Amino acid sequence: MSRSLFPYIMSEEEFYNSSDSIRSGSVLRYVREATLTEPLRLLCGQELPEVTIAYETYGSLDESKSNAILICHALSGDSHVASHDEQDDPGWWDILIGPGKYIDTNKYYVICPNALGGCRGTTGPDSINPKTGIRYGMDFPQITIEDIVEVQRRLVHDVLGIEHLLAVVGGSLGGQMALIWGTSLSQYVDAIVAVATSAHLTSQALAFDIVARNAIVSDPQFHKGQYYDKGNGPATGLAIARMLGHITYLSLESMKKKFGSARNCDNRDNTSFETRFSVGSYLAHQGHKFVERFDANSYLSLSLAIDMFDLGETKEDLAAAFRKSQCRWLFLSFSSDWLFPPFQSREMVNAALAEDRQVSYCNIESDCGHDAFLLANEADQYGTMIGSFLENTLQTSRTHQGTPLSLPNELDDQEPPKKHRIDLDNILRLIPEKSRILDLGCGKGDLLVRLRESGHDHLVGLELNEHYVLRCVEKGLNVVHADLDDGLAAFSDRQFDYVVLSKTLQTVRKVELVLEEMLRVGRQAIVSFPNLGYKKFREELEERGRAPHTDPRPKSQWYNTNDVRFLTISDFHDLCESKGWKIHRQVALDTEENHVIETNPNLNADVVIVVLSKD
Amino acid sequence: MSRSLFPYIMSEEEFYNSSDSIRSGSVLRYVREATLTEPLRLLCGQELPEVTIAYETYGSLDESKSNAILICHALSGDSHVASHDEQDDPGWWDILIGPGKYIDTNKYYVICPNALGGCRGTTGPDSINPKTGIRYGMDFPQITIEDIVEVQRRLVHDVLGIEHLLAVVGGSLGGQMALIWGTSLSQYVDAIVAVATSAHLTSQALAFDIVARNAIVSDPQFHKGQYYDKGNGPATGLAIARMLGHITYLSLESMKKKFGSARNCDNRDNTSFETRFSVGSYLAHQGHKFVERFDANSYLSLSLAIDMFDLGETKEDLAAAFRKSQCRWLFLSFSSDWLFPPFQSREMVNAALAEDRQVSYCNIESDCGHDAFLLANEADQYGTMIGSFLENTLQTSRTHQGTPLSLPNELDDQEPPKKHRIDLDNILRLIPEKSRILDLGCGKGDLLVRLRESGHDHLVGLELNEHYVLRCVEKGLNVVHADLDDGLAAFSDRQFDYVVLSKTLQTVRKVELVLEEMLRVGRQAIVSFPNLGYKKFREELEERGRAPHTDPRPKSQWYNTNDVRFLTISDFHDLCESKGWKIHRQVALDTEENHVIETNPNLNADVVIVVLSKD
Repeated sequence: MSRSLFPYIMSEEEFYNSSDSIRSGSVLRYVREATLTEPLRLLCGQELPEVTIAYETYGSLDESKSNAILICHALSGDSHVASHDEQDDPGWWDILIGPGKYIDTNKYYVICPNALGGCRGTTGPDSINPKTGIRYGMDFPQITIEDIVEVQRRLVHDVLGIEHLLAVVGGSLGGQMALIWGTSLSQYVDAIVAVATSAHLTSQALAFDIVARNAIVSDPQFHKGQYYDKGNGPATGLAIARMLGHITYLSLESMKKKFGSARNCDNRDNTSFETRFSVGSYLAHQGHKFVERFDANSYLSLSLAIDMFDLGETKEDLAAAFRKSQCRWLFLSFSSDWLFPPFQSREMVNAALAEDRQVSYCNIESDCGHDAFLLANEADQYGTMIGSFLENTLQTSRTHQGTPLSLPNELDDQEPPKKHRIDLDNILRLIPEKSRILDLGCGKGDLLVRLRESGHDHLVGLELNEHYVLRCVEKGLNVVHADLDDGLAAFSDRQFDYVVLSKTLQTVRKVELVLEEMLRVGRQAIVSFPNLGYKKFREELEERGRAPHTDPRPKSQWYNTNDVRFLTISDFHDLCESKGWKIHRQVALDTEENHVIETNPNLNADVVIVVLSKD
Repeated sequence: MSRSLFPYIMSEEEFYNSSDSIRSGSVLRYVREATLTEPLRLLCGQELPEVTIAYETYGSLDESKSNAILICHALSGDSHVASHDEQDDPGWWDILIGPGKYIDTNKYYVICPNALGGCRGTTGPDSINPKTGIRYGMDFPQITIEDIVEVQRRLVHDVLGIEHLLAVVGGSLGGQMALIWGTSLSQYVDAIVAVATSAHLTSQALAFDIVARNAIVSDPQFHKGQYYDKGNGPATGLAIARMLGHITYLSLESMKKKFGSARNCDNRDNTSFETRFSVGSYLAHQGHKFVERFDANSYLSLSLAIDMFDLGETKEDLAAAFRKSQCRWLFLSFSSDWLFPPFQSREMVNAALAEDRQVSYCNIESDCGHDAFLLANEADQYGTMIGSFLENTLQTSRTHQGTPLSLPNELDDQEPPKKHRIDLDNILRLIPEKSRILDLGCGKGDLLVRLRESGHDHLVGLELNEHYVLRCVEKGLNVVHADLDDGLAAFSDRQFDYVVLSKTLQTVRKVELVLEEMLRVGRQAIVSFPNLGYKKFREELEERGRAPHTDPRPKSQWYNTNDVRFLTISDFHDLCESKGWKIHRQVALDTEENHVIETNPNLNADVVIVVLSKD
């Protein structure tokens, strides 16, 4: 197929796909095969007597066998997650994995197996059924994500002799595998990175899969799955399935970028697919290449496994799934992913939060849709996040194992020296030892780090700014990317001893909602805010006739400040009184002079800290 | 197919679809047929020698033939837009059209033809080709929306003898027809209502159509389109196309509501389609019913017409399309419609605005996706909007024709008597006669109505609140549903004499952007806002130690007001000075005492009006 058919710039993923057919075969040098010693009992009750697993590894296993990371691939992926050397074919996650990369193979031992049910070396529907001597086809039993993971577990434990994984990392279908590791097998893994995935598909995503499978099985060349010795197989149906898939992997925005400026395809090749529109020639190409490298029965088998995956339908079911999990979690979603929309990651994060699990989450701003996790566009952001999370996991894990290592502080060195925060000193003083603390609008994690240094170990931060979330992850904090104005539905009543809202109240739109939620999920709330009643603010208005300047950041003005709520200490008291909230403590501060204000705080304090509760 | 297969509540649209097969045939009593007297020359260059058009009409044409409204149907629709009597089958837009309904057939003469290329009475691919004596099949020439509209025009002019239409109303594909009427044939129509449509499909929507057509033409039963005497035809391919279509007509939210609580289908009927999941049984049903009532070649023909429709790719092309339009426009989109996303309506609205056309727009909040325009859920909102728009058009049209009728003022009577607005008095006084005026944050249209009463006739309002937009449409104003923080990109430099921001500045987040945009698109900007420097506000802070209360609405407090910017007159002057903006006039007011303030306005005025420009 001539290049001139494609009036668009190739993405990483396309490059990967298009390079398939010209693969030199060099990749095969690195694929290893293992055979499971025991038959595999599947969740459906059936048994696979013989299972072969194809996998590749990168880097070296350290002496204590504590640096192994399992990578799980998506629907059309395979074991070739990264190139092994400069001559090797590119891997599907080359942007992330390799020497000196975010998942640094100089440091970690990376294992990537082909999934059970696949068609790239591991046993699947195109394997010979030992009972019949012919390929399974549709006789291949219906596998589940749990079955795929069980094969991975045997590879890790029995074949590679690794007792415990440092982490399991996966996106999409691979993310579902990681979810099973983290919920059902968490005793064998320190950390899970679940990218662009969900506890169960949306009805919309499910519907696309159903239409795709229909296209395959209703292709006359399907022959009830026994097409292997009958010509081309269901090439048309599989291509339609793949074309549909591709639409869902991209986003409205990314399709506009790819095709918007060259809507009509000038090169109308006489293919069986439509080439009137450039998006049509692109899809035709994707469908065509896919048919060459993928088995239709594997597509049916794996896509049904995805569709049947269900970690829990209700909030309660989901929470139960996370209840027994002992590992750390990092969830990542992408803002324009509509196949696995961000709210689905958030549902799982909420379940983990409700069960007091160690969890971080970021919804990466991206216009690349579901494909974003395979592309370089946002790799700086999510790659750094994954890398920091794994590094922290490694350090923590070694510390636990009696091999203490100093935490790298180079990151903190990058931050400019900070003004001493008397407000944070006082918030720290208000909190008794070993408290459970939720910090709303935690910023770069300054307060959380100080709380951790003070011995508190049950800490969660919420932060709206994606870049601040990254800084928190770098510091090894549990941080969740969230908008306070959406409330705190994730948390149950009295889940925390203290909920802190430090210098953030004035930036919130839904003040009543946020305060009510704080008082619901915390035994007590600690709120600090700039006091509009401060004498210098009063003077500003009274004498200079200017609006008080409560936002201390250098370039902030009335027309660009993030502060959208203006209140004095008395205003806050009025609200508490009208709501029946009880104020337990109040610490008024002059943060310019760095001292506590005792008399007439509404006039003399520029910042106040209030401790309150519902009763 | 048994009802027990469907564990969901039927929507209007489903009811319509499912009732197809049991149609009593009574509908046929009302379908009329006409034959065009001249051959139809198509845009592609080919000619259709004979064209039959099937249509239905409702209500009576008045003596002056000024009350005719043409309704244009969507891809799978037909001429039966509404039921003709109680015994009749339901029509596809029964919620909107009928005696006493939003499009009141006691008042209007409604005409609904089946589209050229369709399969419900009007000439299409299943018609006999007079040249060969057999059905056209794929020999049916490729038609365009323009061709469909030309047939409609001949029906209206030549068959029905109506010179001029009051309005053309259509959604989706029907909306594209309405767009052609309004841009190329606007001399024949007073008003266009374009619902859930676009100037051209997104690449995503186009991609779905391409996959759908692929499924049809690659079905072995397609026989290159000549399947009419060869069994079932491409039933599988057409069903796949329809299933795909249905996913795109719904939304993530509406699918969740339909299927989320009953994901797994307990009744596994042995159909050719998957029934493991309830969404699968739903789609299978939709696909199956559609095959019974729709011709695959019509699907190909009409869907390709949709795909090829392009009113203009660039902003300039689109503007050119609207430049010659002489009619009024109402655009409606639905917030969860991802097939024809709201931004696409907004693109056309922007083009019409750039060309000073009379245009209103509302993005109706709905979770029903593209289907929303056919459903009852939001009908109160968009039905009222369409009804008011048509009523206003009728009144204006009759006034122009020398049959003056008093405008109904019952709507205004419903509003409570208002406090006299001295600020509006003064804004009015600042604006010379016959000015071009843009009112940002126009609310319910109070200022615009007063400007209209003062003789200004070039008025546009922008408003964020959907319900206020409706009130403006009811008053016959040109209003566009928009968020000021998104800027004013629709408008060209100096398009208006005055851009007014009346008591809205304090609610805007991006103050600099909004002011800069005002000064770009207007010769001068008129800005009014509450002055935080007002003595009572100062006293509030200085003496009572409370944040000033600039928002006069009764229940507003510091924690719930829409006011998020606080400034004094001096603050505003400072900003103007730093930007180099020139202040031409300033009117300071005491709106409590209803008088103009002459001395020390920063202390004595509670509201100020400033007239400024860039130079």
